[in-house]
Amino acid sequence: MARLPTLAVLGATGAVGTVMCELLTGRRNVWGEIRLLASERSVGRKVRCRGEELTVQALTEDALDGVDVAMFDVPDEVARHWAPIAVRRGAIVVDNSAAFRMDRDVPLVVPEINPEQVANRPRGIVASANCTTLTMIIAVAPLHDEYGLRELVLASYQAVSGAGQAGADTLHDQLAKVAGDRMLGARTGDVRQAVGDDLGPFPAPLALNVVPWAGSLTDGGWSSEEMKLRDESRKILGMPDLKISATCVRVPVLTGHSVAAHAVFATEIDVEGAREVLRNAPGVIVVDDPAAGEFPMPIDAVGTDPSWVGRIRRTLDDPRALDFFVTGDNLRKGAALNIVQVAELLAEDLTRP
Amino acid sequence: MARLPTLAVLGATGAVGTVMCELLTGRRNVWGEIRLLASERSVGRKVRCRGEELTVQALTEDALDGVDVAMFDVPDEVARHWAPIAVRRGAIVVDNSAAFRMDRDVPLVVPEINPEQVANRPRGIVASANCTTLTMIIAVAPLHDEYGLRELVLASYQAVSGAGQAGADTLHDQLAKVAGDRMLGARTGDVRQAVGDDLGPFPAPLALNVVPWAGSLTDGGWSSEEMKLRDESRKILGMPDLKISATCVRVPVLTGHSVAAHAVFATEIDVEGAREVLRNAPGVIVVDDPAAGEFPMPIDAVGTDPSWVGRIRRTLDDPRALDFFVTGDNLRKGAALNIVQVAELLAEDLTRP
Ligand SMILES: NC(=O)c1ccc[n+]([C@@H]2O[C@H](COP(=O)([O-])OP(=O)(O)OC[C@H]3O[C@@H](n4cnc5c(N)ncnc54)[C@H](OP(=O)(O)O)[C@@H]3O)[C@@H](O)[C@H]2O)c1
Ligand SMILES: NC(=O)c1ccc[n+]([C@@H]2O[C@H](COP(=O)([O-])OP(=O)(O)OC[C@H]3O[C@@H](n4cnc5c(N)ncnc54)[C@H](OP(=O)(O)O)[C@@H]3O)[C@@H](O)[C@H]2O)c1
Repeated sequence: MARLPTLAVLGATGAVGTVMCELLTGRRNVWGEIRLLASERSVGRKVRCRGEELTVQALTEDALDGVDVAMFDVPDEVARHWAPIAVRRGAIVVDNSAAFRMDRDVPLVVPEINPEQVANRPRGIVASANCTTLTMIIAVAPLHDEYGLRELVLASYQAVSGAGQAGADTLHDQLAKVAGDRMLGARTGDVRQAVGDDLGPFPAPLALNVVPWAGSLTDGGWSSEEMKLRDESRKILGMPDLKISATCVRVPVLTGHSVAAHAVFATEIDVEGAREVLRNAPGVIVVDDPAAGEFPMPIDAVGTDPSWVGRIRRTLDDPRALDFFVTGDNLRKGAALNIVQVAELLAEDLTRP
Repeated sequence: MARLPTLAVLGATGAVGTVMCELLTGRRNVWGEIRLLASERSVGRKVRCRGEELTVQALTEDALDGVDVAMFDVPDEVARHWAPIAVRRGAIVVDNSAAFRMDRDVPLVVPEINPEQVANRPRGIVASANCTTLTMIIAVAPLHDEYGLRELVLASYQAVSGAGQAGADTLHDQLAKVAGDRMLGARTGDVRQAVGDDLGPFPAPLALNVVPWAGSLTDGGWSSEEMKLRDESRKILGMPDLKISATCVRVPVLTGHSVAAHAVFATEIDVEGAREVLRNAPGVIVVDDPAAGEFPMPIDAVGTDPSWVGRIRRTLDDPRALDFFVTGDNLRKGAALNIVQVAELLAEDLTRP
């Protein structure tokens, strides 16, 4: 390819798409034309990207003409419909939705962990993992390489923007309703009453609450979000039998997913060794000095690229286990950044002489 | 004893003490005089309790004269100093602080689990457990009785009022500062800047954040709160070698601690059996219909007595393990209610002919 590849961003006006445009502005420029696509609702919106002012176009078959790489930051059902169309029109699809992640013929790629899988795409589609999985797996994979992972027990603290722009808007609206009333939060149901019926994309109020539910119901009482964490981690690590059990909980944080992880390994852990492994791991920053108030937190990790890992300690009652806490920006590494990294691998390939 | 016993509430003006006065109003009346004590700062304050308007007195040796049962809802160091004095003056002390919990000569009593221990008090002191421990152990103990507990992996979602009235005030103040600014929560440090330097009893802002830290630093990077969960659970269950590992996290909730629990047992679990055990357990309410939006949450559990248990599911990769989520009011079962239940056991004893 003599020219730089043409990139389309589908869903450019959403929570992930907005961060995508920011990222494209800051990173190495490997793209020729960049085309921003969204629904009819957004046609004509101006978005700054890479120093240019771009106009959002409707997602149509014609709008995909000449596109080399199409980043999909749209809902599952939109991705399911449009990915094969984009592929037929000649694009490689990098999909951020859940539509193709568990498809045997679609690789699930995290460039820090399994970049080679990007070439293995019989359907022309490469998938990117769920935001909670990405945040956590970046820290777990290098520990697995060193110590041999046997089991993961996870509990998440997930931000509302994980449910898209509507999630963020909902928490802002709810906070405006509850802030200032110092009597709230002391009686059963009083926050529900103050928040009212508009729960946005959530099954319960998020302001002054935690909601132990994300996604839809699957067998045995597990949420789809919990199943994604299990299935996607297994696929990324190439360990189809890995023992994983997760509880996914939404918290009143705008952006930044956190996970409390208990990881059991095949061999004994020395905690300094584990810390060293994490310090040298790509995409990881170790923030672990509790006495100095340093641990990973959403308000610090938001807007940054790496997964922040801290509270690293050897389990007291099991020398082969490690407990730690990890926080990452669900819109960056958890979504847009991973997509952009995958797309850059593809661009490199396309422009290789 | 011909008369009804005299009760003193130390720390009646605090977060726990305030709920204590409410509880005393609603429960069976087993007390004669009730005396409310606090620091010099609160002397003369009027508090409604049991339909009477009581005047807060200063905690002095004389104020303890004639007290049969003294409930301690004061900081650790105040409890450490005053408990032996109250005992010398003839009172039985029921202490909510951490000062004596791990003392071999002080029983750690949860009336639903080990009520008989209340009689075993060589120092004249009975201790009540940490709020997170209490919330969770109420659900774990009956499962242990049925299936034989082997290991617990816990992650907590702790409310700010667990750090006393100052904790609750801090979150209210911070929410007032961040609410209404829809740009916040998207850039590293922006919430820190909006909140400013007044962090109250916490090491970081709580508004729009989660803070994976509570208490002080102990060996190996564990927080004192995490060690309490381990030590106190072991003591209450009488299992000094129980494997426990916990990550304690503070969240922007006013009242209501939650715990995501992964419990491994000696025998296989059938989830309907486990649900039945929990349904019949004292102090537990099962709220477990995710499709109908029913799971335990702080905004519902606050102001109620039981531990709410839900998201009950057998671990997919381990038939002997159970995952569940539990929420309780940290000021009720987590503090005032447990104390009041223990004190009522003592009152029964004292008034038995
Ligand atoms: N948020 C996260 O943390 C996160 C992390 C990982 C993966 N993901 C996945 O990434 C995808 C996007 O998530 P998001 O959080 O950015 O959602 P969002 O804020 O709701 O944005 C959705 C985007 O898709 C567009 N869109 C919706 N329907 C469309 C249609 N029929 N045709 C064309 N465009 C359409 C929207 O355009 P309009 O503005 O015109 O409606 C908008 O740009 C989802 O699949 C999500 O599961 C999200
Ligand atoms: N909050 C919880 O969820 C929870 C749960 C379990 C156990 N606990 C424990 O319960 C105890 C009380 O906690 P809290 O949350 O209620 O704290 P708080 O809101 O800070 O209240 C502290 C109380 O102690 C009184 N006090 C402080 N110093 C005193 C002194 N030198 N002499 C006499 N009274 C004094 C205060 O009186 P003034 O108002 O006059 O200062 C106030 O009534 C602590 O040991 C805590 O660890 C708390």
